[in-house]
Amino acid sequence: MSDGTPADPSGGSCPLPLRDYPHVLLAHGGGGVLTQTLIEGLFLEAFRNPALETLHDGARLEIDGARLAVSTDSFVVRPLFFPGGDIGSLAVHGTVNDVAMCGARPVGLAAGFILEEGLPMETLSRVVVSMRDAAAEAGVPIVTGDTKVVDRGKGDGIFVNTTGIGTLLPGADVAPTRARPGDVVLINGSVAVHGIAVMSVREGLEFDTALESDSASLHDLVARIIETAAGKVHVLRDPTRGGLASALNEIATQADVGIRLDESSIPLREEVRGACEILGFDPLYVANEGKCLVIVERDAAEEVLAAMRLHPRGRESAAIGQVVDEHPQRVTLRSRIGGSRVVDMLSGEQLPRIC
Amino acid sequence: MSDGTPADPSGGSCPLPLRDYPHVLLAHGGGGVLTQTLIEGLFLEAFRNPALETLHDGARLEIDGARLAVSTDSFVVRPLFFPGGDIGSLAVHGTVNDVAMCGARPVGLAAGFILEEGLPMETLSRVVVSMRDAAAEAGVPIVTGDTKVVDRGKGDGIFVNTTGIGTLLPGADVAPTRARPGDVVLINGSVAVHGIAVMSVREGLEFDTALESDSASLHDLVARIIETAAGKVHVLRDPTRGGLASALNEIATQADVGIRLDESSIPLREEVRGACEILGFDPLYVANEGKCLVIVERDAAEEVLAAMRLHPRGRESAAIGQVVDEHPQRVTLRSRIGGSRVVDMLSGEQLPRIC
Repeated sequence: MSDGTPADPSGGSCPLPLRDYPHVLLAHGGGGVLTQTLIEGLFLEAFRNPALETLHDGARLEIDGARLAVSTDSFVVRPLFFPGGDIGSLAVHGTVNDVAMCGARPVGLAAGFILEEGLPMETLSRVVVSMRDAAAEAGVPIVTGDTKVVDRGKGDGIFVNTTGIGTLLPGADVAPTRARPGDVVLINGSVAVHGIAVMSVREGLEFDTALESDSASLHDLVARIIETAAGKVHVLRDPTRGGLASALNEIATQADVGIRLDESSIPLREEVRGACEILGFDPLYVANEGKCLVIVERDAAEEVLAAMRLHPRGRESAAIGQVVDEHPQRVTLRSRIGGSRVVDMLSGEQLPRIC
Repeated sequence: MSDGTPADPSGGSCPLPLRDYPHVLLAHGGGGVLTQTLIEGLFLEAFRNPALETLHDGARLEIDGARLAVSTDSFVVRPLFFPGGDIGSLAVHGTVNDVAMCGARPVGLAAGFILEEGLPMETLSRVVVSMRDAAAEAGVPIVTGDTKVVDRGKGDGIFVNTTGIGTLLPGADVAPTRARPGDVVLINGSVAVHGIAVMSVREGLEFDTALESDSASLHDLVARIIETAAGKVHVLRDPTRGGLASALNEIATQADVGIRLDESSIPLREEVRGACEILGFDPLYVANEGKCLVIVERDAAEEVLAAMRLHPRGRESAAIGQVVDEHPQRVTLRSRIGGSRVVDMLSGEQLPRIC
């Protein structure tokens, strides 16, 4: 990994923390503890500004009176095509959702492609057509783009970056710091579907299943949720890398609250549970791409849950837990048999390159 | 390059044109003819919408009354560090400039990192610090970000995507289609500096020179230009990949006009000319990162040129040609010795991974 740097006679001192990790590990991209260390120890430290500090998955900006949300995401999923989607549809859904999770209606996407020399044009074309279809279905146009090509062996077929811009929904005021004791935690369906669908086609781990990724745009569902309860919706979050457990741990830490989950209420499709058992994965840590966590005031929870269940992407919505005063910055799970355990943030890398 | 695609029994038909190129070539990312083929034959074809069609380097969007410009760019420069900059500063300058070339003041950047497993944290840290400094110097905060990690051997150290959002400057109305016969073509200094600076440190091509990349943020210079002549400024363009020749060919084609250049007026530093001769490059096709082409109405040209020369990043500004009725969609060059030749768009790949 020569980077053209001349040898540093000082011995290569790191201008920012992170000395415990002299090299980037796959786990730094896994959505768990090491990702958080990298973000907080390096990126937040260097780029510190109010917009960056508010939200992890998107920024809110006010420009000329317009209240905007902006989010960026790079997609490096392997393989490029998987049951229920591909890197193209995922790149649209992922960023549409990150913008939506700021309480915003996405209005445009920018797309950046990094292609590897030798990539079959047919493959690129299929990915582009899939992006087109996903963008059309979501009603969010791709307004600008960029393409770079790297030499053979210096990339992996296609990487896609999408950045989304949206306009905040009237009355929306969501942020992870707004979770409050008494709030109810909702989710719009079965966890762990995307991660298991991708793993099902990974080389050496194939098994018989009709499982398809849940990858989908959720901005319409989010608009319905905000219309129903506006300011009573405190947090929206799509539990992607690191799964439900990591997303809720981040929220618990940022809001300095405890979160108590009820295992028996967490929707988990039978085939996903079975696949997780075969593969040795805890479904709470497996990535989702069409799921949305909603943390809402108790008195609006029933109404929001009912609205979600009326939406095609929320039919299996459920209340899965609550925000509590006890054990701040901790997520606990009451198991089916009645015991209670702490659910930590993902440590290490469970599923590399899942999105 | 296995992409997980099952064998296609139809024989792999490409749903969109580009059949002449069954695989992606380095030249598809070079900023010349093949890049244009890819953009027009695949991306524009698939994503067709008014915002995408207006400008190549950025989109203009109106959201809630705010008039915005959005541009995205991925950076894959090799090596990561070069005289006068690195991938981090380049990623800030490049996108700040793409937003500025829409006639806008950049207000925020989103940054996406694709890191290769095993990258020295020290290298990442240096790049991040460089981005921080470039963003601070430009006065444009990095408001949101994303980090992915790919396995060793599936990337090349660091790729950076930046997306910029800006607000259109009062009175600005620039677009490549606005170039009109009679307009004057200005540039803010010597061409080919960035490309030659990067090549100077590429393995096997090092030679003695103090040449540094011209990479710099130009939004302040652009603001000065727009203040001086507002609607009389018809086109702004940073001639990056493919150089001056490719940028002017794109404009000539889009506006259906001819452009006539005067070779003796084009600023070209002596050491850059020498390096181009040694390396066999035509400086008109070499990438720039701190240069801006300005196409302006004749009666405002002198005033704009004077304003540019007063700016630290425009001291060597010059009028280098004019827009003409003759030979539409062609760029011609009157040479030092009086002859005239056609200057085509870059064909093939002159300098891979220059930005």
